[in-house]
Amino acid sequence: MTKKNAFYAQSGGVTAVINASACGVIKAARKHSDKINKLYAGHNGIIGALTEDLIDTTAESDETVEALMHTPGGAFGSCRYKLKSVEENKAEYERLIQVFEAHDIGYFFYNGGGDSQDTANKVSQISEKMGYPITCIGVPKTVDNDLPITDNCPGFGSVAKYVAVSVREAALDVASMCESSTKVFIMEVMGRHAGWIAASAGLAHEVEGDPPHIILFPEIAFDKEAFLRKVKQSVLEHGYCVIVVSEGAQNEDGTFLADAGGKDAFGHTQLGGVAPFLANMVKDELGYKYHWAVADYLQRAARHIASATDVEQAYAMGEAAVEFAMAGKNAVMPTIVRNEGDTYSWSVGEAKLADVANIEQKMPRSYITEDGFGITKVCHDYLQPLIIGEAHPPYENGLPKIARLKLERVEKKLNKPFKVK
Amino acid sequence: MTKKNAFYAQSGGVTAVINASACGVIKAARKHSDKINKLYAGHNGIIGALTEDLIDTTAESDETVEALMHTPGGAFGSCRYKLKSVEENKAEYERLIQVFEAHDIGYFFYNGGGDSQDTANKVSQISEKMGYPITCIGVPKTVDNDLPITDNCPGFGSVAKYVAVSVREAALDVASMCESSTKVFIMEVMGRHAGWIAASAGLAHEVEGDPPHIILFPEIAFDKEAFLRKVKQSVLEHGYCVIVVSEGAQNEDGTFLADAGGKDAFGHTQLGGVAPFLANMVKDELGYKYHWAVADYLQRAARHIASATDVEQAYAMGEAAVEFAMAGKNAVMPTIVRNEGDTYSWSVGEAKLADVANIEQKMPRSYITEDGFGITKVCHDYLQPLIIGEAHPPYENGLPKIARLKLERVEKKLNKPFKVK
Repeated sequence: MTKKNAFYAQSGGVTAVINASACGVIKAARKHSDKINKLYAGHNGIIGALTEDLIDTTAESDETVEALMHTPGGAFGSCRYKLKSVEENKAEYERLIQVFEAHDIGYFFYNGGGDSQDTANKVSQISEKMGYPITCIGVPKTVDNDLPITDNCPGFGSVAKYVAVSVREAALDVASMCESSTKVFIMEVMGRHAGWIAASAGLAHEVEGDPPHIILFPEIAFDKEAFLRKVKQSVLEHGYCVIVVSEGAQNEDGTFLADAGGKDAFGHTQLGGVAPFLANMVKDELGYKYHWAVADYLQRAARHIASATDVEQAYAMGEAAVEFAMAGKNAVMPTIVRNEGDTYSWSVGEAKLADVANIEQKMPRSYITEDGFGITKVCHDYLQPLIIGEAHPPYENGLPKIARLKLERVEKKLNKPFKVK
Repeated sequence: MTKKNAFYAQSGGVTAVINASACGVIKAARKHSDKINKLYAGHNGIIGALTEDLIDTTAESDETVEALMHTPGGAFGSCRYKLKSVEENKAEYERLIQVFEAHDIGYFFYNGGGDSQDTANKVSQISEKMGYPITCIGVPKTVDNDLPITDNCPGFGSVAKYVAVSVREAALDVASMCESSTKVFIMEVMGRHAGWIAASAGLAHEVEGDPPHIILFPEIAFDKEAFLRKVKQSVLEHGYCVIVVSEGAQNEDGTFLADAGGKDAFGHTQLGGVAPFLANMVKDELGYKYHWAVADYLQRAARHIASATDVEQAYAMGEAAVEFAMAGKNAVMPTIVRNEGDTYSWSVGEAKLADVANIEQKMPRSYITEDGFGITKVCHDYLQPLIIGEAHPPYENGLPKIARLKLERVEKKLNKPFKVK
C-alpha cells in the first residue's frame, strides 16, 4: 500500500473536547506513519479544503499535540458551512477532489455533527464517481447530543457537567438570598431542537426539594398556566424557584418562546433570549424578584469543568477513526456503545455515515416527567455516567494552559483560487 | 472572663467563599470554647437576629463545618437588608440588643461588604449607649472588591478567576468560528459601580492579540464612536472581537448603558442587560454576527473554579475576626495586607469599622489603559496573585459535594415577634 496524506477538519459549533478528538486523530496518524504520510488540517474546516488553506500538523510538537487534550475551541478553526447537494453545487465537490488529488490526500477525517457526517458521506460518494478514491471517516461531535446510533456524542458530557455544576452552585446562591431578594432564577442553556443539555441540569437534583425545580424542553410545548403554577408552588414550598430553559423552548405552534416577545425602541426583535423573556413573565404575573443568566459559549467552551469520561471518549473517537481507515473501512463513523451491565462502561462501535447523516435524535418522551418539567429516573441513569470524572487542565498563573499552535501552512499547489459562498 | 455566646451572620450578596469565612469563624470559636459558649448563626443574616431566628452551629459536625470550605452560597442564609440610622429606626437596634441579651450573646461577627460593616459599626455604638456591651467584629466579603483599606476582598479573587478563565475559554470558541460565523462575543459581568470584575478578564490576555480586546468599565464614560472603531479594528486585525462589559457601564451623564434602550412590546424596560444592548449596537452599526453571555449568579457562585488564594484568605478573615474578639478588640475588621516584596505574600491587618463603612473603592484611573478599553501592567500585577491556585472541591457522581447542614434552631426566648420591613 502506498503512503498517502490525510486530511482532518473540524466542523460546526466547537466544543470543550473537539481538540481531544483532534489529538486522537493526530497521534494515531503519527503511529501509522507507514501508511499515512502527512496529516493536514483544514483551516476553518471544510473551507480550508475548498480554498486550499491547509495546515501541516507534522510541524506541531508532541507536547503541543498533547496540550490539545485540554484546550477548548477548534484549534484548526471550524466553520458553519454546509455543502449543498451534489446536483446543486457540483463545482464544490469537484474542487474538493482536485485539492485532495493535488495534495495526494487519501484519507478524509471529518469531525462534526449530523450535517458534517452528511458532507463526509457525500464526499465519499463523489470521490468514487470521480474516480479518485478517498477513505472517508466521520468523527462524531456535538454538544447537542443529537446524533443517532451512538449512545452519546463527544462534547455533550462536558456541557452537561458544566450545566449541572453551574445550576447547583447558582441555586445555592439563590437559596441563601431568597428571603429578602431574588426568588426566581432562570438559566438559559443551548439546545435549539433537542433538550439534552437542559435535561442534564436535572443531575443537580439529588435530594427532594433540590433545584432545578423546573426544566423547559424544546420537546414539550410551553404551557404558560402550568408553568406559572409550578413557579408559584416552588416559591411557596422552598422559598425560591430555579428554572433551566432550553433556548429552543417552544410554544404549541412550534414558534420559539423567545420570538413571541416584542420589539425594542429601535424596532428590533427582542434582544434577550428566552431567559429574560420568562423572567419578565414571572415578574408580571407573580411579582417575584428574578435574576437570569445566559451561559451561551461559556457552556460549550468550559474545558476547565469538562467530564473526564467525555474527554476520554472524544480522544477515542479520533483515534478510532484513523484505526478504521487503516483497517480499510470507508464511509463510516466510530460510535460510543454503552455496554450491558450495572456499572457503566463503553466501547467503540461503528455506524454507516449514510445512517447518521441529517438525523436529529430528540429526547424520548419517557425521559421527561409526566408534567413536562423534569427528568425521569431512566433519563437520570442515562445521563449520569456521562459527567463522571474530572479532567482538570494544568494551570499556570491561575489560568488553564492552552495549546498555542504554529499552524504552519502547506504550500498551495493549485493555481486557482476558489470562492466559498 | 465569663463565657458568652456569639452571633455570626452573612450579609448581602453571597460569594463562592463566604462559607469559608463561616468555617473560619466556627472553627476558631470552637477552639476558644473557654471564652465562647455557643456560636449562633442568624438565619438569613441580620433578619435572623431581628426575628430571633437563630441557628445553633454547635449541632453541625466537624465534617459538615469543614465542607463549608467548598460550598458556595450562604449556608445560613443571607439578606439584602440595611439597618437605617439609629435616629430613623431605633426600634430595630433595640430589638437587636434585646435578642442578644436574651441569648447571652457577647460577640457579634458580621460577614459582609461596606453596608454590612456600617451596620456592625452601628450595633457597636448602640450597644455601648444601651449599656449592653457587645464585641463587634466585621468579616470582609464582597465580589465587587470595593472595600477600602483591605488590599482585596474575599470573594473577589474567585469571581476574577471565573471571569478570566471563562473569557479565555469562550474566546477560543469564537476564534475558531469567526471565519464563517460569530465575529463579536460580548460577556457581561457584575460590578454596578466598580470595574474590578471586568478588569480581571484582562488577565486572560497573555500574548499580543489575545482576548479580551475590549473591556468596558463603569469608571469610564462610554464613547460609542471609539467603541465601534475598536470593535471594527479588532475584527479586521484578529478576525474577531471579544468584549467584556461591566453591568454598570455608563454613559457620560451617569445613566447605565443598559437603561438607554427601549421598551418591549409589553411596555417593559428592555429585558436584556448591557450585553444584548451592545450586541445589537454592533450588529446595527457594523453588521457583524454576534453572541452574548450574561453570567449573573454563575460567576459569584462558581466555587468549582475558585481561587485557592481567595479561599485561604476568606477562611483567614473569619478566623482572625474571632481572634480579634478574643484579644479584646472591638469595632474592627480584619483586612488583607499585601506584603512588600517581589513575590506575592499577604498577612492579616486591621481596620476600624468606622473607616470601612460605606466607602466604595473604585478602580484607580492608572489601572485602566489610556484608551479606556483595557488594563495596565500595574493593574495586571495587582490582580494576578489573587487568582493563583486551584481549590478543586471534592466530587461525587460527577458533581461537587456540598455541605448539607442541619440548621437546628435555637429555642426562642422572647415572647415578641418582630416584623422586619
